[in-house]
Amino acid sequence: MRTLTVDLGVRSYPIHIGSGLIDDAELLRASLRGRQVLIVTNEVVAPLYLERLARAYAGLELRTLVLADGEASKTLATFERVLSALLEWRFDRQAALVALGGGVVGDITGFAAACYQRGIDLIQVPTTLLAQVDSSVGGKTAVNHPAGKNMIGAFHQPRAVIADIGVLATLAPREVSAGLAEVIKYGLIRDAELFAWLEENIERLRAGDATALALAVERACRNKAEVVAADERESGVRALLNLGHTFGHAIEAGLGYGEWLHGEAVAAGMCMAAHLSARQGWLGGPEVARIERLIERAGLPTRGPAALDPAHMLELMAVDKKVRHGHIRLVLLRAIGTACVSADYDPPALRAVLTERRAAPAAA
Amino acid sequence: MRTLTVDLGVRSYPIHIGSGLIDDAELLRASLRGRQVLIVTNEVVAPLYLERLARAYAGLELRTLVLADGEASKTLATFERVLSALLEWRFDRQAALVALGGGVVGDITGFAAACYQRGIDLIQVPTTLLAQVDSSVGGKTAVNHPAGKNMIGAFHQPRAVIADIGVLATLAPREVSAGLAEVIKYGLIRDAELFAWLEENIERLRAGDATALALAVERACRNKAEVVAADERESGVRALLNLGHTFGHAIEAGLGYGEWLHGEAVAAGMCMAAHLSARQGWLGGPEVARIERLIERAGLPTRGPAALDPAHMLELMAVDKKVRHGHIRLVLLRAIGTACVSADYDPPALRAVLTERRAAPAAA
Repeated sequence: MRTLTVDLGVRSYPIHIGSGLIDDAELLRASLRGRQVLIVTNEVVAPLYLERLARAYAGLELRTLVLADGEASKTLATFERVLSALLEWRFDRQAALVALGGGVVGDITGFAAACYQRGIDLIQVPTTLLAQVDSSVGGKTAVNHPAGKNMIGAFHQPRAVIADIGVLATLAPREVSAGLAEVIKYGLIRDAELFAWLEENIERLRAGDATALALAVERACRNKAEVVAADERESGVRALLNLGHTFGHAIEAGLGYGEWLHGEAVAAGMCMAAHLSARQGWLGGPEVARIERLIERAGLPTRGPAALDPAHMLELMAVDKKVRHGHIRLVLLRAIGTACVSADYDPPALRAVLTERRAAPAAA
Repeated sequence: MRTLTVDLGVRSYPIHIGSGLIDDAELLRASLRGRQVLIVTNEVVAPLYLERLARAYAGLELRTLVLADGEASKTLATFERVLSALLEWRFDRQAALVALGGGVVGDITGFAAACYQRGIDLIQVPTTLLAQVDSSVGGKTAVNHPAGKNMIGAFHQPRAVIADIGVLATLAPREVSAGLAEVIKYGLIRDAELFAWLEENIERLRAGDATALALAVERACRNKAEVVAADERESGVRALLNLGHTFGHAIEAGLGYGEWLHGEAVAAGMCMAAHLSARQGWLGGPEVARIERLIERAGLPTRGPAALDPAHMLELMAVDKKVRHGHIRLVLLRAIGTACVSADYDPPALRAVLTERRAAPAAA
């Protein structure tokens, strides 16, 4: 097991990475303050791992809640369901919520932990690659609003993140690819060495090689922990973590949540950001090609969906959290490994990229 | 105008107290970061003060939202309504919410500000005595759940509190009394001198004497600011601010929110706490009599409602946020001016107090 620390003063916490951690009762109980535990998971993860995880909390006042799978359940209504359950069971402020699942479960559970009695403990047990490398670390919690993704939420750091590499073995290939999108993101924004390593190892990762996956998770988490420690509330450098996300959120909202996986939408969005960066003269053609090639090899889309036209995309992008005074600010690339937040791009160039990077409609 | 500071490092903020402050555009605009402002108020306050306050923000992108009056509107549904409005108007992260109203408006607006895009600016412009002396300061925000008051919320400090003593002139006498309950609370828990001053000045306060009211608001806010600075997230001393509140929340929930005003329920709760403290041998009979006498002179109830029997009260009290490991922890008094949080009371004594301090049913 490897342990990293997210350094946030009194709110610092460990990220444990290793195989078989969901059976490690000592580790799982180490961060509890009280005797009440609610495991929140979903209908896909529950049959696979709920019983094993629950064993770690034997003898405590343990409850479980199984949500529907998918981004479509990340709503205020589901948030309310978690809170009502906590109240019904008389959970007090010493209680802990354990999020067993992917980004959706982590985001909903985290937001419920942030708001129940104004904040109780949260333990993240991410079961998807995407959640292990990105969403379980850093304290961002949220639910979606029909008008925009992650628009309702809070910063609420977990007490611990427990990333069991073993559970990745049951992931669908599509989910592995979606997680790789966020790993590639770290390479692009601040870790050129990671990007090069991914170019060497992408097939091993897709094949589920546990050693390679553990390395990827650790390297991604180390990048994330550094960024979060430097800028917990996203007043500066943390915004770079949103490379591809303004485009991606628009794709997810435009198609209806759950149609494309988050990582797929981000992948297409990163390609758009790369092309816009190239139009700015910031990124060379060969670099754009390397980016597209790696994303393609990861099993991810390099173009936006045919169903969304550029005007609709722009409209959806205008609801992004990085919008300031009406300007859409985007994360763009200066090189592989160097990103910046900018509103200093040519608006017609953005429109051209949206037009060009849209997939061709399926033949009739 | 007098200005106090709530000392919370980078989250420190001023409390301005004076007459005519809602017409002071410079003061009201001083804490804005962007050009988008949403004033949230209710249908009682809007006709009185909304136009005046709105003038201060002339030339900015100003929107207003008028909620139904009363505790019954402090729900997740209202919270969602505020968030949907912000999204519809494309408010960005530099936007500010201005809460113009009493505790209910402040709590809902504050919770919406805490969660919109994971947190935007909040300015409190409290228009009730209760909000000026208590709820607008300290960053507690919440909505109610059918199963318990303030069970869903967040800590989110305002950027400024602007307490205009002038607006208290239009308050109904019942609202003035409800606010006085929280002022008396500060006397009881940590300021015996304030308690004695209230005994001298309670009639002036009820009559709306602006000088006396300004003094009471300032003294209460100073007490609150000191407590919040010492313990922002209520891990210790801040819990003392809940004197009477565990009883009070049970009364409010049991009767249905809005039947009794929050201050009325707290007043009866403080009398119950005093009687239980006396049964513990911590408080003398003459002190209990002084407390009940002042609460009565403030126009407040000294007994719980006839409609709630002790068993039901106990059940409702068990949902309190101070409950730990199933024990109801209560704020009790060691003297006028000295309080403590304790689970170390005799349970039959609590039951006896609930029985004795219940109002006699109305004659048939």
